Amino acid sequence: MINKQLIMPEISELIKKKKWSELRESVEDWPIPEIADLMQTLEKQDRVVFFRILPRHMSAAVFSHFEPEQQNSLLVELTDDETRQLLSNLAPDDRTALLDELPAQVTQQLLSLLSPQDLKEARSLLGYPEESAGRLMTPDYLSVRPHWTIGQALDHIRKMGRQSETINVIYVTDPGGKLLDALDLQLFILSNPDKKVEEIMDDTFISIPAFADREEAVQTVQKYDKTVLPVVDSEGMLLGIVTIDDLLDVAEEEATEDFQKGAAVAPLRTSYREATIWDLFSKRISWLIILVFVNLVSSGVIEAFEEVLASAIALAFFIPLLIDSGGNAGAQSATLMVRAIAIGDIKLRQWLQTVGKEVLVGIALGVAMGAASWALGLYRGGAEIGIVVGLSMVLIVLVANIIGTLLPFLLTRLNIDPAVASSPLITTIVDAAGLLIYFSIASLVIGVTM
Amino acid sequence: MINKQLIMPEISELIKKKKWSELRESVEDWPIPEIADLMQTLEKQDRVVFFRILPRHMSAAVFSHFEPEQQNSLLVELTDDETRQLLSNLAPDDRTALLDELPAQVTQQLLSLLSPQDLKEARSLLGYPEESAGRLMTPDYLSVRPHWTIGQALDHIRKMGRQSETINVIYVTDPGGKLLDALDLQLFILSNPDKKVEEIMDDTFISIPAFADREEAVQTVQKYDKTVLPVVDSEGMLLGIVTIDDLLDVAEEEATEDFQKGAAVAPLRTSYREATIWDLFSKRISWLIILVFVNLVSSGVIEAFEEVLASAIALAFFIPLLIDSGGNAGAQSATLMVRAIAIGDIKLRQWLQTVGKEVLVGIALGVAMGAASWALGLYRGGAEIGIVVGLSMVLIVLVANIIGTLLPFLLTRLNIDPAVASSPLITTIVDAAGLLIYFSIASLVIGVTM
Repeated sequence: MINKQLIMPEISELIKKKKWSELRESVEDWPIPEIADLMQTLEKQDRVVFFRILPRHMSAAVFSHFEPEQQNSLLVELTDDETRQLLSNLAPDDRTALLDELPAQVTQQLLSLLSPQDLKEARSLLGYPEESAGRLMTPDYLSVRPHWTIGQALDHIRKMGRQSETINVIYVTDPGGKLLDALDLQLFILSNPDKKVEEIMDDTFISIPAFADREEAVQTVQKYDKTVLPVVDSEGMLLGIVTIDDLLDVAEEEATEDFQKGAAVAPLRTSYREATIWDLFSKRISWLIILVFVNLVSSGVIEAFEEVLASAIALAFFIPLLIDSGGNAGAQSATLMVRAIAIGDIKLRQWLQTVGKEVLVGIALGVAMGAASWALGLYRGGAEIGIVVGLSMVLIVLVANIIGTLLPFLLTRLNIDPAVASSPLITTIVDAAGLLIYFSIASLVIGVTM
Repeated sequence: MINKQLIMPEISELIKKKKWSELRESVEDWPIPEIADLMQTLEKQDRVVFFRILPRHMSAAVFSHFEPEQQNSLLVELTDDETRQLLSNLAPDDRTALLDELPAQVTQQLLSLLSPQDLKEARSLLGYPEESAGRLMTPDYLSVRPHWTIGQALDHIRKMGRQSETINVIYVTDPGGKLLDALDLQLFILSNPDKKVEEIMDDTFISIPAFADREEAVQTVQKYDKTVLPVVDSEGMLLGIVTIDDLLDVAEEEATEDFQKGAAVAPLRTSYREATIWDLFSKRISWLIILVFVNLVSSGVIEAFEEVLASAIALAFFIPLLIDSGGNAGAQSATLMVRAIAIGDIKLRQWLQTVGKEVLVGIALGVAMGAASWALGLYRGGAEIGIVVGLSMVLIVLVANIIGTLLPFLLTRLNIDPAVASSPLITTIVDAAGLLIYFSIASLVIGVTM
C-alpha cells in the first residue's frame, strides 16, 4: 500500500504551486481510488485542470469513482470533445450509471455525443427497468464456440481479453448467440490445448434473466458462490454479464434502503452526505404526517375513556410506559420478520408456524414485563393500579408481537414491500390497540363505567 | 438451469423406493446447492444414507452448504472414519466455519481426527479473533517468484491450480513468503511466455492485515473493486486469501445484526428459522426491561404535572400523538446517522455540520407537523389546547431530531457501536423530553400552576 502520510506534504506543495505535470508523474502509479480521493481535496478549478492532464484511460477510471454530483460539476466544465472522449473511455456499466443519475435532457445531450456503436450499447443497456439485472450488465465478455480447440479458444482469449471486464469466466455460445455453458478460465489453462471446448463443457451453468430484479442477482451469486453471472433474454441468448463487485454495491444500497424504510424514511437514493435539506425533509415528512393522522385513533380511545381517566388520574402516568413497551416489542418482531423475509430466511408460506412461534415468545416477554410493571404500578399507584398495569402489559406485549409478526407477511402477500412495516408504523398501530386494552381492563377492575 | 419441476416426481419416486444409487446417478450433474436443497427435504435417516453414497468430493461440498444445525445432526451419525474423510475434504474456510459453530468440546474432538497437516492449518486459522479477516481466509492460493518466466509460472499454475480456491489472482512472493505483488491471471495469459514475472509486476497491490476487522475487508474489496484480497501479517508475509463470495455473506450478516440492534434486539447470530423460542426471548427481553425502567422518567414527568392534567383532562388525548411523533422523528434521524456512519458515508469529525443540517430539517419537519397538530388540537380541545399542542409539536420534533442525530455520534466517540441508538431507545428517551416540553408549555398557556 502507498504510504500517503509520508508523501502528502510533497503533494500539497505541488498543488499549491500548480505544478500539474509533476503532480501527474508522482501519482501515476497510485491506485485509481486514491487519485479520486486526492482530486476531491482540490479546488473546483484545479480539479478540472488536473483532470485534463491525466492520461485518458486514467481519467475515465477516476471519473467513475466520483459521486454523481462531482461528475456533474466536472462534466459542465468539459468541452463536447472532451466529454465524448471521456464517455467512450468509461466502462459500459459505469456509463449507464452516469446516464442514469443525470437529468433526462442532459442524458439525451450526452447520448448524442456517443459514437453510433457506443450509443447502441448505452441505449440497449438503458432499455431495462431500473433495479433490473439488465441495468447492471456490461456487454464486454468473451465467448467461444463448442467446436473450437482449447488452443484456438486461448488464442481468442489472448487477442480479445484486454477489452473485457473479466476473463475469469469464458462463455460458450452457439453461432446465434445462445448461451450453452460458462467455463472458468482455469479450465482452459489446465486442459490439453488439443482438446475441444465441448469436451470440457458440463452443460450446467447459472444465468439470470435481464428483467430479473437486481436483488435476485445478489441472491443468486450468494447461493452459487459465483463472481460473475451471465445475463440472458427469454430465449436464452447471452446479453451481457454482471460482476460481483457491482452486486456488492447493490446489496449495500438495498440494505440502506431497507434501513431507511424501517424508520419510515422514503429511500433517499443518494448518500446522506449529498442529500440536501429539502431531500431529507421531503423523504421524511410524508410518513410523519400520515402517522399523525393514524394517531387520531389513539386520541379517540383516550377521549372515549375520559371518565375512567378522570376518576383515577394515576392511570395517565402509565400511558407512556405501556404504549412504548408495546411499540418496542412490536418493532422488534416486525424488524426480525422484515429482515428474515428480505434475505429469504423465512418464506411467505411459513407465516402460520412463525406466528405460532411468536405467540409463545410474546407470552414469555409479556409475563416478564408484566411482572416488572405490576411492581412499578403497585409502588406508584396502589394495588388496583398495579394489577391493571401488570395485566395490560402482558396483553399489550402479546398483541403487539402478533401485529409486528403478521403485518410484514400481510404486506408481502399484497405484493407490498414488507419493509413498509416500519418501527414507527408498528408503534403507532400498537399504541391504539394498547390504549384500548389498558382502559378496558382499567374500567373493569376499577369499575367506574359499570 | 435445471428444470427441477419436471424431474421432481421422478426423484420423489426414487426416494420413496429408497433407490439410492439410482438417485445418486440422476443428481450427479446437479449444482451442489440444488443437491443440498434436495437433501433437506429427506427424512433424517434417509439423509445419512444418501450422504454416505455421494462421491467424496461432492459430499464435502454439499455438507458446507448445510446450516450449522443440520451439519451437527449429520456429524453425530457418522463414524470417526467418515468424519475424518469429510473434514479433510472440506475447504479450509468451510472447516473453520464449522469448527467455529460447534461447542468447544466437540471442536476439540473433531480436531483430534484431523491429520497433523490439516490440524495445523485449522488451528492457525482459528488463532485469529472472531470477526477478523484471518478467520475468513483460506491458505489455498498460488504464488510465483519474480525471477520466473511467465512460461514457468503458467506451468506451475497448471500443476497446482486444481487445489486452489481461486487462480484468478496469482501472488508474487519472495523465498521468505513476503508478498511482493498480486497479478491477475489474465496478465499471465496475455503476456509473452518468455518474459519474466518481474517485468509484468507493477508493485501496487491492496492487502489486509489478518487481525483487521472483517468489515474492513468488505469495505476494501468494495473500494478497490477486487474479487479476492491477500491477507498478510505485520511483516507483510502472505498468510492466505479472502474471497469476495465469503465477504458478501459477511456484509449480509453485518447488515442483519445492525437491523436487529436497530430494533433493540441483541444480535441473534443464527438465522431466524433456526432460532429457538428461548433464543428469541433472551435476545429481546434485556432491552425491553431496561426501557421499562427508562420509562419511569416519563411517568415521573406526568406525575409532577398531575394538577395541570387534572384541570384539563383533554391534554391526555394528545399524549400518544406528541410522544409518538417525537419518537418517529428521532428514530428517523438516528437510523439515517447509524447507517451513514456504518457505511463510512459520514465521519465522526463531521458531527457538528451534520447536527447543523438536522436542526434545519427538524425545524422544517416541526413546523409542518405543528401546523397539522394545531388543527387537530383546535378541533378536539379548543383554542388553548390547539396552541399548546401545535407549539409542543414544533419543539418536540426539533429536540427529538437533535437527540436522534447526536446520540449515534456520542456512542461512536465513546467506542460503543452506534447501532445501540435503536429506534426503541430513542423513542423512550424522546418521550420523557417530549412530556416535559408538553406539560411545561401547557402550564404556561393554561396558567394553572402560576
